Amino acid sequence: MKIAVVGAYQTKFGELWDRSLADLMKEAIDGCLQDGDLLPRHIQAAYVGNMLSGMVDGQQHLSSLVSQVIGESIPVTRVEAACASGGMALRTAVMAIESGMIESALVLGVEKMTDVDGATITQGLMGAAGSDELQAGLSFPALYALMASQYITDFEISETELAAVAVKNHHHGSLNKYKAHFAFPVTSEQVLASPAVADPLKVLDCSPISDGAAAVFICSKPWLKKHHKRNGVCITGSAHCNDALSLSHRRSLLELPATIQATKAAYVQAGIDPHDVSCAEVHDCFSIAEVLAVEDLGFYQKGMGHRAATQKATWLGSRLPINTSGGLKACGHPVGATGIKQVVEVTQQLRGEANGRQVEGAQVAVTHNVGGTGGTAVVHVLQR
Amino acid sequence: MKIAVVGAYQTKFGELWDRSLADLMKEAIDGCLQDGDLLPRHIQAAYVGNMLSGMVDGQQHLSSLVSQVIGESIPVTRVEAACASGGMALRTAVMAIESGMIESALVLGVEKMTDVDGATITQGLMGAAGSDELQAGLSFPALYALMASQYITDFEISETELAAVAVKNHHHGSLNKYKAHFAFPVTSEQVLASPAVADPLKVLDCSPISDGAAAVFICSKPWLKKHHKRNGVCITGSAHCNDALSLSHRRSLLELPATIQATKAAYVQAGIDPHDVSCAEVHDCFSIAEVLAVEDLGFYQKGMGHRAATQKATWLGSRLPINTSGGLKACGHPVGATGIKQVVEVTQQLRGEANGRQVEGAQVAVTHNVGGTGGTAVVHVLQR
Repeated sequence: MKIAVVGAYQTKFGELWDRSLADLMKEAIDGCLQDGDLLPRHIQAAYVGNMLSGMVDGQQHLSSLVSQVIGESIPVTRVEAACASGGMALRTAVMAIESGMIESALVLGVEKMTDVDGATITQGLMGAAGSDELQAGLSFPALYALMASQYITDFEISETELAAVAVKNHHHGSLNKYKAHFAFPVTSEQVLASPAVADPLKVLDCSPISDGAAAVFICSKPWLKKHHKRNGVCITGSAHCNDALSLSHRRSLLELPATIQATKAAYVQAGIDPHDVSCAEVHDCFSIAEVLAVEDLGFYQKGMGHRAATQKATWLGSRLPINTSGGLKACGHPVGATGIKQVVEVTQQLRGEANGRQVEGAQVAVTHNVGGTGGTAVVHVLQR
Repeated sequence: MKIAVVGAYQTKFGELWDRSLADLMKEAIDGCLQDGDLLPRHIQAAYVGNMLSGMVDGQQHLSSLVSQVIGESIPVTRVEAACASGGMALRTAVMAIESGMIESALVLGVEKMTDVDGATITQGLMGAAGSDELQAGLSFPALYALMASQYITDFEISETELAAVAVKNHHHGSLNKYKAHFAFPVTSEQVLASPAVADPLKVLDCSPISDGAAAVFICSKPWLKKHHKRNGVCITGSAHCNDALSLSHRRSLLELPATIQATKAAYVQAGIDPHDVSCAEVHDCFSIAEVLAVEDLGFYQKGMGHRAATQKATWLGSRLPINTSGGLKACGHPVGATGIKQVVEVTQQLRGEANGRQVEGAQVAVTHNVGGTGGTAVVHVLQR
């Protein structure tokens, strides 16, 4: 598979109270087209990932809204998979281009989260969990805290080792000052001293509630040639897998089988193995999630993932930098936008255009987007 | 394009207060597999269309829930396009099979609507309209009433002629007694005497709020051969198009450009013209919607669609029966399920298995599923 990424753009992530859903869509679409030197008429179809617009904005039917914002009557598809909505929109667009039924697509991820109160957004987000988990009074920090506790016990690690993920991602976020929700560094002491959310997770172990959007323009190789576009970055692997919604249906709290399966399929498609990867954006909704991700993606053996950040092996400048955007933790997590923002970030890395946080000589990148506690996982491989 | 439909099943539509979202999913999946003599392991991927589960059931992330219900870790994709969610799920699955990345898919449509109060469901459904329309205090009956008023004025028809659509669809529904929400006939006098909802539309011009699910199993021709399945019914055309969300952005209230565009593309793919069609399931959310649909689908000239039902040309036994299931009006309208139910109905017609309401010698069928007031339209062509 070789699907070219021609345009890529991310809006600022943060509390954007002065921007509507349509405003964010428009900025991301226009920015993406401009980045790729493209026109609206080049968009043959569009895909949009979003989770909560029905609840937060009173607006479903985003396919039609995107068509209205673009100003062209084109076929648009909305895909929803909780926090993996963005990645799933890209995955669906890739399959559509592979079908030969379309040659180009704009893929948009967008979410407004900060215009409603905390209780409403928490209730909305719990729609990504099992109904048994909701009824048990669990929240997402609590669910990931169960995983973190198990990991801490089984592999005898300290909370400081977990905190290293947040410290690294805030460091990266501080280098992404125009786009990141929290573009400032934090120390390990600050993470450990921050208020407890669900033991052992503290506030600074958790990704924030953010607004934002991101878009990429992808196309087939023939389309690229026909339109005389430069062949910069290609998607060479695309896979997703689902697993049971509830943690109680899983065999283990220490791995995400959906990630493992999707990774295997995506790497085979791309013809790569984990050693080939130059950088990755992984789903660090909580610090434990990044630890599990670097293991499930094959970068570290099970039980060794916590060493990645503590030994600075995943910091910028090391062999395999992870979440150079700041990740969900520091760049922010407008859920539908996250999976597309990951692709925007690695596209910039592979182009050599990640000002101030460039991974030198980046050739192969992986993006990893998760819904719920691993009910959905989407993995993409991109190469220059 | 030749995608085979191997299994098809619809649950009873109605007020199913004793059935959960997962219960309905399970019945539809099991029924579909049984119909096609299939096993869960035959499902390589699944697609699910649903609009309102986040609001009604507190449950998003249906991809993972479907995986849990099927009991296999397979890739599942949720697609949402308001009342066209079911049709869009099928459209997306068709493209995935055409991509060659999968060979078989189960496509499910499901909706629970009657467990919440009327105000909540109305608010949820208005998520399919433009925010300007919501702020203006418009509801969907009011929006379609604007179209109906314009049609009545421009083409000088009577409300009795509009009511004929409801009379026909209730007649068909009365022949579909095990599945239809309202399996009883109504007279023209009853429609005209029913309470006004939004002038000129009365209660009996409007489709109901329903619960229900439907599923089809589709596959490539090589998969069919490999698994020794009979080659009954094939999807030969599949297209969708979007248009602006708000009626105020449209050029005319008398046509749905998204339907016209999608129809053109689907007919070209299938190599048919409107005269070839034996029967169709069209999106009759309100009686005016069926009148516009039979015109936009090319069965009647613009301004002549009202004659279809009044002259009994779309009744069972005539040349082109429309909505033999009872349509959205009498079979019911659990929004995410509707687009798939349409395909289940025409599959049974093309197989010659539509007991008591068989269209004799049905060879070519069309399904037509609309989101909002025409912001999305999906058209499929099926052939035996």
